[in-house]
Amino acid sequence: MSFTKIDHYEKEYADMHHDTALNVTEGVEDQPIVSPYFKRRKKRALSTGEYVAGILAGNITTLSQAITLVESSNPAHYAQAQEIIEACLPHAGKSVRIGITGVPGAGKSTFIEAIGNMVVSLRHKLAVLAIDPSSERSGGSILGDKTRMESICNNPSVFVRPSPSAGSLGGVARKTRETIVLCEAAGFDVIFIETVGVGQSETAVHSMVDLFMLLQISGAGDELQGIKRGIMEMADLMVITKADGENIHKAELARTQFQGALRLFPVPESGWRPKVYTSSAVAKTGLEEVWKGVEEYLEHIEKNGYLQHNRNRQNKYWMYETINEALKESFYRDPAVEGRIGEYEKRVLEDRISSFIAAKELLAIYFKDTAGKSE
Amino acid sequence: MSFTKIDHYEKEYADMHHDTALNVTEGVEDQPIVSPYFKRRKKRALSTGEYVAGILAGNITTLSQAITLVESSNPAHYAQAQEIIEACLPHAGKSVRIGITGVPGAGKSTFIEAIGNMVVSLRHKLAVLAIDPSSERSGGSILGDKTRMESICNNPSVFVRPSPSAGSLGGVARKTRETIVLCEAAGFDVIFIETVGVGQSETAVHSMVDLFMLLQISGAGDELQGIKRGIMEMADLMVITKADGENIHKAELARTQFQGALRLFPVPESGWRPKVYTSSAVAKTGLEEVWKGVEEYLEHIEKNGYLQHNRNRQNKYWMYETINEALKESFYRDPAVEGRIGEYEKRVLEDRISSFIAAKELLAIYFKDTAGKSE
Repeated sequence: MSFTKIDHYEKEYADMHHDTALNVTEGVEDQPIVSPYFKRRKKRALSTGEYVAGILAGNITTLSQAITLVESSNPAHYAQAQEIIEACLPHAGKSVRIGITGVPGAGKSTFIEAIGNMVVSLRHKLAVLAIDPSSERSGGSILGDKTRMESICNNPSVFVRPSPSAGSLGGVARKTRETIVLCEAAGFDVIFIETVGVGQSETAVHSMVDLFMLLQISGAGDELQGIKRGIMEMADLMVITKADGENIHKAELARTQFQGALRLFPVPESGWRPKVYTSSAVAKTGLEEVWKGVEEYLEHIEKNGYLQHNRNRQNKYWMYETINEALKESFYRDPAVEGRIGEYEKRVLEDRISSFIAAKELLAIYFKDTAGKSE
Repeated sequence: MSFTKIDHYEKEYADMHHDTALNVTEGVEDQPIVSPYFKRRKKRALSTGEYVAGILAGNITTLSQAITLVESSNPAHYAQAQEIIEACLPHAGKSVRIGITGVPGAGKSTFIEAIGNMVVSLRHKLAVLAIDPSSERSGGSILGDKTRMESICNNPSVFVRPSPSAGSLGGVARKTRETIVLCEAAGFDVIFIETVGVGQSETAVHSMVDLFMLLQISGAGDELQGIKRGIMEMADLMVITKADGENIHKAELARTQFQGALRLFPVPESGWRPKVYTSSAVAKTGLEEVWKGVEEYLEHIEKNGYLQHNRNRQNKYWMYETINEALKESFYRDPAVEGRIGEYEKRVLEDRISSFIAAKELLAIYFKDTAGKSE
């Protein structure tokens, strides 16, 4: 009897360790050309200075290309992306970063579209990002399907960028965080980061936003089971969606229930007791109220210093995250390691060597190779 | 207004990165001596050969001391622990590794005690380990309180070891896995690994066991909310505990409900459809049935090859985990990094440097230091 080699939760983890980045889409340099009579013209790569100038000027095409560099697995692209980010940093940080989560079916895409249109009508520039690595996508991730948010995608004040198409959560989270910097430098002052809220992505999102918004569908307490424990504790603001037609009463009931449930938690460090709203993306109700709630919260945490405190703490977290990702990158991309790791993995899988000894020998290979680089 | 610096989920993560190991208990070398007239005699440190010989002879004291080395933050202890493990490896792997999880209140400690006594009456040698790092302990971890399992702790065929008292989940999981090797080499042929089942520890446990057992309390469907989604999918065997007295009917009902719920999941890769049992630790009912279920499952996966397949895959996972932990260890214990990281963290927290640049500079310090070591 034989078993599949991949159907296991460890798959993503294992991939992450030695060849994730190889799976990341590299983007397309040229659009496919239909007529064979047109000759493909190789686009000249932009210099770092050109990227930065374009981003600071708010050029969407340049921004998109820079994000593609951030997402690229090519080490040269990665290096240039880091230079661009470093140059953009002094111009970043001036946006409101909002995490939006909810189980599949909670109506995230329609809600984001509705409130997004409202936000840009208030003269904001809105970027919508997503953080779910493909392996966690269970059909609930809206941004894979831009067509579902057509009205917002065609608005010039809105920049929608789907999640990187593959990679580990750690890698995707890093890329999303770097993308935030680029979007902020390009003048986007409201950033939505969407996640499906059933995996571990919310923690990653929570570590990069100022406000965490949880969408819930109306109805009985059953939905609570759909959301991971701990997510509700993270929410700074909750929205009961689809509060229209026959649902209005149920939504109102759910609002009261959740508001009651939230009262059971201790007051968060922000000093803000989360509020619950009802909203209908179809009937366009509740959107102003939700946004007013967002502004109230932000005013509160700006005034009492929590906004800055929280961002600084997030920065500390990201310093460590960046280091850990870089250490793995350095190991799994080391030529001496890359040449041997497949063989070791095979021997471990075939039980010809223990995991401990395989790890020890690979580490010895790596450190010998790294040490040799000083010569 | 000032905020606490630690009340945040990132705390554990951050700790893990630069000073976790410093928090790990070092164990006590000498028992406290009551009478001051007795002079403390400094125990001579055992050689690696002495440790290995003691473990292979089934000496519990030596085994305990070796586990203390595994858990130690002292690099010299760590190095010796690795030597001991390597020597023990050829004698390991011959046990049945069973993960046991359940929310606090599910009656884990009494169940483990009851079934443990039964298992040793069948001439097995049983080791009971735990995997919850202290930060995740919410009063539900049984092994912090050995007194609650008194009858089993006093049985010479049983070895009970509480979870390392501090550290990140990654670190604790590694230590537990290494402890399994030592216990197996010492002749323990049944190993229980206990976890509270509300954190992320179950995934770690699941990656080191042959069978994953989920304990549930009888009653309405409410308890389902207490268990993290995804845990039920991991279970190879489920036990409704506390099925005694007035609870018998409720427990039987719960059994039927859970059995029905489990039927909704696709058949796992093991080819084994999980069964649900009821049991009472007090009335000593259902224990034989549960153990028979364990044996049936093991026979099934041994026959179809899944046992070996799964272990090999776990080994692969652990090869990568060991590497990643070692990379972090190498970085955060690098003298040049250790001397600077506090200052960088402070500058990031005070918003005087970006996380990206802090990470970049620290990595440069590290790689310069590492490269220098070849000279």
